[in-house]
Amino acid sequence: MEDQRNTLSVVKIGGGVIEDPEALKYFCKAFSQISGPKILVHGGGKSATALAEKLEVPTKMIEGRRCTPKETLEVITMTYAGSANKTIVSQLQADHCNALGLSGADGNSISAVKRNPKPIDYGFVGDQLKVNTSLIEMLLSHGICPVFCAITHDGNGQLLNTNADTIASEIAIAMTDKYRTHLWYCFEKTGVLVSETPLKVLPKLSASEMKILKDQEIIHSGMIPKLTNGFHALEKGVHKVGVGNEDMLANKGPFTLLKKN
Amino acid sequence: MEDQRNTLSVVKIGGGVIEDPEALKYFCKAFSQISGPKILVHGGGKSATALAEKLEVPTKMIEGRRCTPKETLEVITMTYAGSANKTIVSQLQADHCNALGLSGADGNSISAVKRNPKPIDYGFVGDQLKVNTSLIEMLLSHGICPVFCAITHDGNGQLLNTNADTIASEIAIAMTDKYRTHLWYCFEKTGVLVSETPLKVLPKLSASEMKILKDQEIIHSGMIPKLTNGFHALEKGVHKVGVGNEDMLANKGPFTLLKKN
Repeated sequence: MEDQRNTLSVVKIGGGVIEDPEALKYFCKAFSQISGPKILVHGGGKSATALAEKLEVPTKMIEGRRCTPKETLEVITMTYAGSANKTIVSQLQADHCNALGLSGADGNSISAVKRNPKPIDYGFVGDQLKVNTSLIEMLLSHGICPVFCAITHDGNGQLLNTNADTIASEIAIAMTDKYRTHLWYCFEKTGVLVSETPLKVLPKLSASEMKILKDQEIIHSGMIPKLTNGFHALEKGVHKVGVGNEDMLANKGPFTLLKKN
Repeated sequence: MEDQRNTLSVVKIGGGVIEDPEALKYFCKAFSQISGPKILVHGGGKSATALAEKLEVPTKMIEGRRCTPKETLEVITMTYAGSANKTIVSQLQADHCNALGLSGADGNSISAVKRNPKPIDYGFVGDQLKVNTSLIEMLLSHGICPVFCAITHDGNGQLLNTNADTIASEIAIAMTDKYRTHLWYCFEKTGVLVSETPLKVLPKLSASEMKILKDQEIIHSGMIPKLTNGFHALEKGVHKVGVGNEDMLANKGPFTLLKKN
């Protein structure tokens, strides 16, 4: 039987793109030209770190992972939901994309559970996401493009810092009931690189291949959550998952397509 | 002929309420209990000033009016659209009010024109508001309560700082086509006071009475834009305009009702 579902594109944009005004303009133009319903997810990256430094809010790390005490959550709310989200939304509007910015609290679009403070207290961090698919569907059906920042809420008045890669994959998974869903992790590079010079991008990657490259430390740091969330999405029914820069959105450049084992 | 329109409540909340967590909780509870469709409009008040001070962004005033250069717009975007808007939205969600935060850029809900830099350059300030009533109506019809911060956009990628009292009155006016609209200016006091001790609140006030009290300097500063916008709304078909604290929303306390001359 033919798949009658419309294609929905869920794009996650990296911090590096957001902070460079020219890169952001270029990205917004490429994103606006995606045909059909689409959703954008972004973090705020370095702008939050820069604001925290200016406000002398210390960055607390435990075992290499960032914590979100109250003061850090405030900084994140200002930068992710404030400056980053509104800059992107107004730019997309200029590109004739009817964008509408959301945190998880807005319309109860994404609720989450505060991470257990035991054994390690990471502060106001949200896991176990619940996506309000009927709200998203309603917005999409009116030609609106939801733009999510990396903040959720617990339903009891508490905002929660939440990984943007996870938000993107959970939205893509939740929307598979109604749409044939494509998930694109968009950042500065053209995909998963096995060599920088000469530039060598993997056109395809499976979870077991990833494991080998991770053990060899060819895949590391920020690429790991993207790929982990990407493979999870693929397992859960997302049709296509890609990693690369904005040129992949128009199928104009190389990128890495995740494949099942 | 009987008025068949539903009543829509448009409430503007002052900066003093937003900054006091206990006052905000009390307000959100009162606001949530308004029956029927409702819209909230807020500024950010002192939190923007406090952040600007911490970041050493100078406050530029011309003839007693605040200017909005680029750096100030960034601070306003972080506080109004970021921390203030999301704190209010998450609190309203906890109070079972399905709030959804918006700047004017979101869904192109309110566009504006940048104020002419001649003779005085006020920076990125928006006037001549255009309210997207079909978006607002669509959200209301799905049981969503729009929560507007005091930021609009020009449609070309530029955010604009915009007076929250004006946003509230322009929304109330624009929605009169479809709704019997009530506009409530909610702040710390119980209405327009003619005396502080003993406390004497005017139960009713007309525009010509306001003029006399303004000349006598009994009405001054922040009260003037509220009343000016309020009388303008009354002229333009808004059914009821009130000024007072959150108890007026439940008809529990004294407040000032504006009346036509």
